[in-house]
Amino acid sequence: MNYPGGIKKDNNSNPVLKQINHRNRGMSLEADLNITNEYYRDIDKAYIYKKPTPIKVTKVDYPSRDKTVIKEAFYTIPSTTDYNGIYKGKYIDFEAKETKSKTSFSLNNIHNHQIEHLKNIERHGGIAFLIVRFTTLNNTYLLFIKDLVSFIDNETRKSIPLEYFEKNAYLIKDNYKPRVDYLKIIDDLIGGI
Amino acid sequence: MNYPGGIKKDNNSNPVLKQINHRNRGMSLEADLNITNEYYRDIDKAYIYKKPTPIKVTKVDYPSRDKTVIKEAFYTIPSTTDYNGIYKGKYIDFEAKETKSKTSFSLNNIHNHQIEHLKNIERHGGIAFLIVRFTTLNNTYLLFIKDLVSFIDNETRKSIPLEYFEKNAYLIKDNYKPRVDYLKIIDDLIGGI
Repeated sequence: MNYPGGIKKDNNSNPVLKQINHRNRGMSLEADLNITNEYYRDIDKAYIYKKPTPIKVTKVDYPSRDKTVIKEAFYTIPSTTDYNGIYKGKYIDFEAKETKSKTSFSLNNIHNHQIEHLKNIERHGGIAFLIVRFTTLNNTYLLFIKDLVSFIDNETRKSIPLEYFEKNAYLIKDNYKPRVDYLKIIDDLIGGI
Repeated sequence: MNYPGGIKKDNNSNPVLKQINHRNRGMSLEADLNITNEYYRDIDKAYIYKKPTPIKVTKVDYPSRDKTVIKEAFYTIPSTTDYNGIYKGKYIDFEAKETKSKTSFSLNNIHNHQIEHLKNIERHGGIAFLIVRFTTLNNTYLLFIKDLVSFIDNETRKSIPLEYFEKNAYLIKDNYKPRVDYLKIIDDLIGGI
């Protein structure tokens, strides 16, 4: 192929790919996970979905027979985590969070009952974890619930320092397809089947 | 105990229990399943939840800093089923529907992509089924996805006759606690652990 203006085929200097990389960095973790889960479904690898946001509806209107318009509603606290599904026969359950901090992840980002939920899932044979992205550093980690619980049980701090992630969590490498290949980490855990 | 007016202790003639039974019959399948799933969680037996109803929010208002009021929103078609969770390490996934018909259950009650979803779950090692209540008969059945698919593949009718449920589904007996003990059917399937 001929590249105009003598631009090399090297990915790092390709302006189009640079633009894509730049756009990726700006995408939210939620958007990345939605694309990733869609990809997993497309290739029939795993069926993992984001649950709808829980909303309490207080007023509705019926402008026509088959149409309902919600006129007043409120966001409510989720009773579980945002994502769950199945992979290789295993029940998968996780919560995903972003932080702008470069040094730590505050536990205020997760509800206590969500941590309890993830503990229940693990105790019953499921695979439970957090996905945490440090957006400023553009690093995304998978932290298994046992390692989250270990931190909470042994530390008094209300935020998990980055070093704890570096030591105890798994870095999910940036990827093109799928965007956030977190099942690769699960494969390493449960072994290839 | 002394019962006023010479009423016997027999459960069938006890007015309080009669009232309770009558109230049970009037409860929706969704309410019954919510109570059942709460009971399963309380006794640490299974963690199965109803997903929130998917809603597309189009207008929000912020009357104060920490309050969001949704002023316009619409119900959207769910991408998966209503219920999922974990039981004895197995991924559980089902849809629950009521019908007033005394003779059949119309397939129009279920979206095609929900049937596809249940097939995917079963193929990947999960336990997938429908719970269908014939409200007029007060009979609640558990129909595994394989038997639903078998009907669809072999019949041209767009509704499943009651007789098909009687032959191929499992009747979930009325119960006090838990209300709709569908995991008993799953136990019979996977064997006691």
